[in-house]
Amino acid sequence: MSLLITNLGELMTQDAEHRVLRDAAVVLEGERISWIGPAAGAPAADESFDAGGRAGVPGWVDSHTHLVFAGDRTAEFEARMAGELYAAGGISVTVEATRAATDDELTRLLLSRVEEATAGGTTYLETKTGYGLDVGHEARSARIAAGVADEVTFLGAHLVPRDWDADEYTDLVCGPMLDAVRPYVRWADVFCEAGAFTPEQSRRVLQACAAAGLGLRVHGNQLGPGAGTRLAVEFGAASVDHVNHLSDADVDALGASWSGGGAGTVATCLPACDLSTRQPFPPARRLLEAGAQLALASNCNPGTSYTSSMGFCVATAVLQMGLTVHEAVRAATFGGALALRRHTGDDVDGRRAVGSLAVGHRADLQVLDAPSASHLAYRPGMPLVHAVWRAGVRVR
Amino acid sequence: MSLLITNLGELMTQDAEHRVLRDAAVVLEGERISWIGPAAGAPAADESFDAGGRAGVPGWVDSHTHLVFAGDRTAEFEARMAGELYAAGGISVTVEATRAATDDELTRLLLSRVEEATAGGTTYLETKTGYGLDVGHEARSARIAAGVADEVTFLGAHLVPRDWDADEYTDLVCGPMLDAVRPYVRWADVFCEAGAFTPEQSRRVLQACAAAGLGLRVHGNQLGPGAGTRLAVEFGAASVDHVNHLSDADVDALGASWSGGGAGTVATCLPACDLSTRQPFPPARRLLEAGAQLALASNCNPGTSYTSSMGFCVATAVLQMGLTVHEAVRAATFGGALALRRHTGDDVDGRRAVGSLAVGHRADLQVLDAPSASHLAYRPGMPLVHAVWRAGVRVR
Ligand SMILES: [Zn+2]
Ligand SMILES: [Zn+2]
Repeated sequence: MSLLITNLGELMTQDAEHRVLRDAAVVLEGERISWIGPAAGAPAADESFDAGGRAGVPGWVDSHTHLVFAGDRTAEFEARMAGELYAAGGISVTVEATRAATDDELTRLLLSRVEEATAGGTTYLETKTGYGLDVGHEARSARIAAGVADEVTFLGAHLVPRDWDADEYTDLVCGPMLDAVRPYVRWADVFCEAGAFTPEQSRRVLQACAAAGLGLRVHGNQLGPGAGTRLAVEFGAASVDHVNHLSDADVDALGASWSGGGAGTVATCLPACDLSTRQPFPPARRLLEAGAQLALASNCNPGTSYTSSMGFCVATAVLQMGLTVHEAVRAATFGGALALRRHTGDDVDGRRAVGSLAVGHRADLQVLDAPSASHLAYRPGMPLVHAVWRAGVRVR
Repeated sequence: MSLLITNLGELMTQDAEHRVLRDAAVVLEGERISWIGPAAGAPAADESFDAGGRAGVPGWVDSHTHLVFAGDRTAEFEARMAGELYAAGGISVTVEATRAATDDELTRLLLSRVEEATAGGTTYLETKTGYGLDVGHEARSARIAAGVADEVTFLGAHLVPRDWDADEYTDLVCGPMLDAVRPYVRWADVFCEAGAFTPEQSRRVLQACAAAGLGLRVHGNQLGPGAGTRLAVEFGAASVDHVNHLSDADVDALGASWSGGGAGTVATCLPACDLSTRQPFPPARRLLEAGAQLALASNCNPGTSYTSSMGFCVATAVLQMGLTVHEAVRAATFGGALALRRHTGDDVDGRRAVGSLAVGHRADLQVLDAPSASHLAYRPGMPLVHAVWRAGVRVR
């Protein structure tokens, strides 16, 4: 079955040439894109969809979420807005509720959150463990996530649980816990921050997980300067996330990680989290000038960023972080794909590229209720998702 | 016909006692609220709506919009985001397009914008003239607005049109233009700012419009310190809007305007506009501490704030202006009603009070897709409007 999506007033492809087409069309053939070009020259297809002059962009790639959880932390949010400081310990509230939930409850909650994200235009989504924090519950979270999300990350090193010695817990993460989650995850992550894991403990986690064949990601430089970014670059992590407090050396290292022509470490910005925790935004412009690659992600989680709205993240990046609309949309699509190493087709597992619109890529596409992608920032808060296809299937 | 809305997990009434009820219900009888209280004690009604534990809040009162316009200013937005300064002259682009549009086009555009606002939970809406700027086109805009919006404001003093002497244009505004719009409007407004109207010209506009029996509003202190707030208080204006650059004396004057027990001058904050123009947010906390009353409004217009999302304004006020959720929701409901002097029922024209939920008030109510109103800021960008009633009629 082929579908012609035509009469796209603007089509922001986010492809290798950064092309933005006018009066464009796209043909979807099964799960892939089979043709892109001027609407006037489009080939015939089994069915067609008239976009009525609306703009098309790739589906959002949300490369950083924490959606496998139960429980509620509204009161903590209210307290923080009233001026109390961010307490990493809040995570333990979610750990308790998540452990207490049944498999069915956790699965249902995860599915409903992924549905919300899809309704908001997200077509490719990573999520993490990190609210289990013992061998059994981390493995359960990983298994449940693997049944629903596109990519799963092992984040046993999210927080040192109550009554644990940090080094002993790190041993657990690097040994039995890693073994237990290994069948379900492609990525490993560590929260390298004062109050979470030290640079030494973080290094041990990254070493063990790399040795187990997992790709690496790091939560780093969120609450203050630190070793997270440095470690991420040293280990060739696909991404370092938060990056609110970067030294000049950190910025340069992130830029230099891309200079060889290969895949470096993406700087993943989480602006909704920054607003909710009142952290300074990452130095996005400096990062771009240094040659770094940016991703924008929601960090959807019940503590510090309970939104999966990538549209909100894009609007915030433009209005408050100094990115152009094109740069922000690129970070929320191609940048996320780069951070998940899905920006090109994968010879190993046969998956198609996501995050940009080109022939052969997965047919993940949004039509916006607007004549141009600029409206994502020009009209913040407005519901601009008109239609969404994921792997060629209309999902909204 | 009566309707029982029950099983409201939280009901933020924004009434005189600032009550927030748990497990509440509301009965609508025709266009008015006939009962509010605990769900367990609710009277019978012809029909019922089960909110399923969701939260209820008053419908938004958007007390500041500019929706009677044609044309597009996306390019100007993009330029501003790229670092160019805000040019008041951008208004003339919209004036040209608005003058060129037919009555039918303008009406259709206005209706579609009000529909968007309603879908976002707005149940009471003010809009302004100000893109006509000659006698015939201002009168036309006022007439079209009066057929659609709840409240209409005459803003002939929006900008001095090209080729006009500012004092001569002020004469026109205060004379023939005021006469022509008078049948259609309840309010008059003036853009008192460097580059728009001087304090002296603004004073003339306010005097003439007050003499014609119109209520007063002022655009003031948006781009720098100035006389706008001072004039608004002096003339007993219902509202001064923008208020980004206030002196201590301005803050005190706004507070003192409420000290007599009567209706003072509301400080109307327009945070979506502030983000889009990169102005500092108004000193909301200082204003509250001084005893001032706040409103939150969208300022929806094609130049500086092309959104009607009051949910976005509330989220921004909490995340970035230091208001609590209760304060922000109050400003977006009761505060807007106060700024339009519709917070109590009107003995003159028989209209019911809006902006708060109490027996006898107009039945303007939203049910949120969330267990508490806090989710408006806890989940920014998420579509949280579940159901909306306006004057007792389900409009979403
Ligand atoms: Zn995270
Ligand atoms: Zn305005």
